[in-house]
Amino acid sequence: MPASPIRRLAGAARDAERRGTFVYRLNIGQPDVPTPPQAFEALRHIDRDVLEYSPSEGLESLRVKLAEYYSRCGLDIRSEEIIVTSGGSEAVLFAFMACLDPGDEIIVPEPAYANYMAFAISAGAHIVPVATSIENGFRLPPVAEFERLITPRTKGILICNPNNPTGYIYTRDELEAIADLAARHGLFLFSDEVYREFCYSDQPFISVMSLPQVRDNAVLIDSVSKRYNECGIRIGALVSRDPEVRANVMKFCQARLSPPLLGQIVAEASVDTPEEYMREVYEKYLERRNFLIERINSIPGCYSPMPMGAFYTIAALPVDDADEFCRWCLEEFSHEGATVFMAPASGFYSDRSLGRNQVRIAYVHDIPYLGAALDTLAAALRAYPNRR
Amino acid sequence: MPASPIRRLAGAARDAERRGTFVYRLNIGQPDVPTPPQAFEALRHIDRDVLEYSPSEGLESLRVKLAEYYSRCGLDIRSEEIIVTSGGSEAVLFAFMACLDPGDEIIVPEPAYANYMAFAISAGAHIVPVATSIENGFRLPPVAEFERLITPRTKGILICNPNNPTGYIYTRDELEAIADLAARHGLFLFSDEVYREFCYSDQPFISVMSLPQVRDNAVLIDSVSKRYNECGIRIGALVSRDPEVRANVMKFCQARLSPPLLGQIVAEASVDTPEEYMREVYEKYLERRNFLIERINSIPGCYSPMPMGAFYTIAALPVDDADEFCRWCLEEFSHEGATVFMAPASGFYSDRSLGRNQVRIAYVHDIPYLGAALDTLAAALRAYPNRR
Repeated sequence: MPASPIRRLAGAARDAERRGTFVYRLNIGQPDVPTPPQAFEALRHIDRDVLEYSPSEGLESLRVKLAEYYSRCGLDIRSEEIIVTSGGSEAVLFAFMACLDPGDEIIVPEPAYANYMAFAISAGAHIVPVATSIENGFRLPPVAEFERLITPRTKGILICNPNNPTGYIYTRDELEAIADLAARHGLFLFSDEVYREFCYSDQPFISVMSLPQVRDNAVLIDSVSKRYNECGIRIGALVSRDPEVRANVMKFCQARLSPPLLGQIVAEASVDTPEEYMREVYEKYLERRNFLIERINSIPGCYSPMPMGAFYTIAALPVDDADEFCRWCLEEFSHEGATVFMAPASGFYSDRSLGRNQVRIAYVHDIPYLGAALDTLAAALRAYPNRR
Repeated sequence: MPASPIRRLAGAARDAERRGTFVYRLNIGQPDVPTPPQAFEALRHIDRDVLEYSPSEGLESLRVKLAEYYSRCGLDIRSEEIIVTSGGSEAVLFAFMACLDPGDEIIVPEPAYANYMAFAISAGAHIVPVATSIENGFRLPPVAEFERLITPRTKGILICNPNNPTGYIYTRDELEAIADLAARHGLFLFSDEVYREFCYSDQPFISVMSLPQVRDNAVLIDSVSKRYNECGIRIGALVSRDPEVRANVMKFCQARLSPPLLGQIVAEASVDTPEEYMREVYEKYLERRNFLIERINSIPGCYSPMPMGAFYTIAALPVDDADEFCRWCLEEFSHEGATVFMAPASGFYSDRSLGRNQVRIAYVHDIPYLGAALDTLAAALRAYPNRR
């Protein structure tokens, strides 16, 4: 498996910090928002003598709570259809391992979360990209673009909605078209919806689990990490209405014995997080997004569409090679003792020639931090010798 | 991946319980011993606002603590050589994924922990078994038996020491012979030593990490699960002195983002568990082992060698087909309202014709429980229509 460019930059960022440079970290999805108090309360009140294995499919009580949560989201999902995983990451890996054979293909709109590629490699499967572009705000291309990529080895389509890294939210028309296609060709429709709560739109969020044509083909990837700001507990879920898919996933679950018990206890308590907490977090991100996008677009030569979900955006910069620019920021530049760490978008495309002038920026810090980070970015672009 | 026989029996055990039959569970490695109080204290005193991602290689503070622990075990291991994993299970999986290519082979003495097979399948690798037998107490065959299995595709040898399922502890001569062989052929020597603390012998336990001929080839699989009775926290470790192995493992670690934060906090506190706790647990298992083995060998037609480590033994029963006998116990038998659940040994052999009359029994319950369980087993053998 190749090392991704961002891993190499992480070393450069640490070196910069060792030299005493402050590094504004716009590269990561680790929010600064506090975990809800319910989570810590649950830990303080653990009433057990033994921190024993939980069932391989996860604690029954957590699965019931998650089914209640999905019901509040308007989704008809029974607790038996939910398998608890070690983070959304394991849900993606097990979905691929269980549903794909070596040599199989899945179609993925790009730019896409870089680790999908890593998990596909682990399963011996190939990702076949469908390009979307910043010029039209990362809308999906016509479904015919997907259809012409289907081969006898195609087993599924994977979407991330709301999207990491673009922040794009799929419209009902787009989702219906993809679901119809998946149903027509008997493909799995994998949908990573871990950013479900982060939709800055008047339109209701649409889950693939609500689309009747893929009732049995849809495989939902979920996680409590982003929703409750508890990325470290490593609790996610895989949801499928197809008993055969679940039986295959369970073989991998049983081999790794069980998902983390303490994380499950915290996740279960977190599902009862009051609406007020959720609303405050939402409003915080909305304000950050509006601030960030306005500021990016005010820097000469920079452009970001308005992302409608998640907490990322892809921005185009006035440079030819964002990999090189991001490296230069960390290794050769500082402005008033600071520099900026962004994720080059090349890591989100299979075709490394795409997105060459783009970066992903996460807005998981407060507005003063974002403002100072963007001042630093603007200064870097002024100083950069290879500016386009 | 095929479902293992024990998974099917687990359903039968639940059905028996639903019918009101008490099921003595001798099948599993979930000890009844309380987790040390330090673990719960650490949870009550978490002083964080955010349960954030930890580094992919694990918390620095935990890795330093583990290095101190290894130093107390007489092993020269630096914290940089330790990668924290989600249980020993993930350490095995990542060791295989990082060190083996699809089609590669690893030689494994059998009977062996059933999930090694599952992880090998995930890596696309093949397990090549070396048989050991109950008649000679599961001693290793001469090293020539290993050597004649080596092909151009052989990349490693895997041992579990102390052994699950047999309880066997490798002698220095056996370990030196295998290590010499691995060194001579440039093979990895994977060693699962999660039962290190459970050695009921006057001889000191020998880790592969202490053998100079495999200084760089040895890959240690470890876990705090059994040592501190905290199987549910899912914290293990992979240790290698080879930077290239660690770099490859790290790619898989980065894809799954991080090991569980809460488990790492508990594990770090647990490394300071007082000697007194460890000694009490040790003495408890020693007493249970002695009781169990004497009682098994007093049942007509049953035989178990004296296991010197871990908390399992493989016993031969006076039946032709232990799969069928174990199923019968759960589905068709009860004695004074109870029955017994054992793991048929066939699940621990690649060659399903081996160990047909054997079961694995775990001694993770107290002596009254074990006594009643063995009374039930004796009654089952008296009543079994296909007794040999």
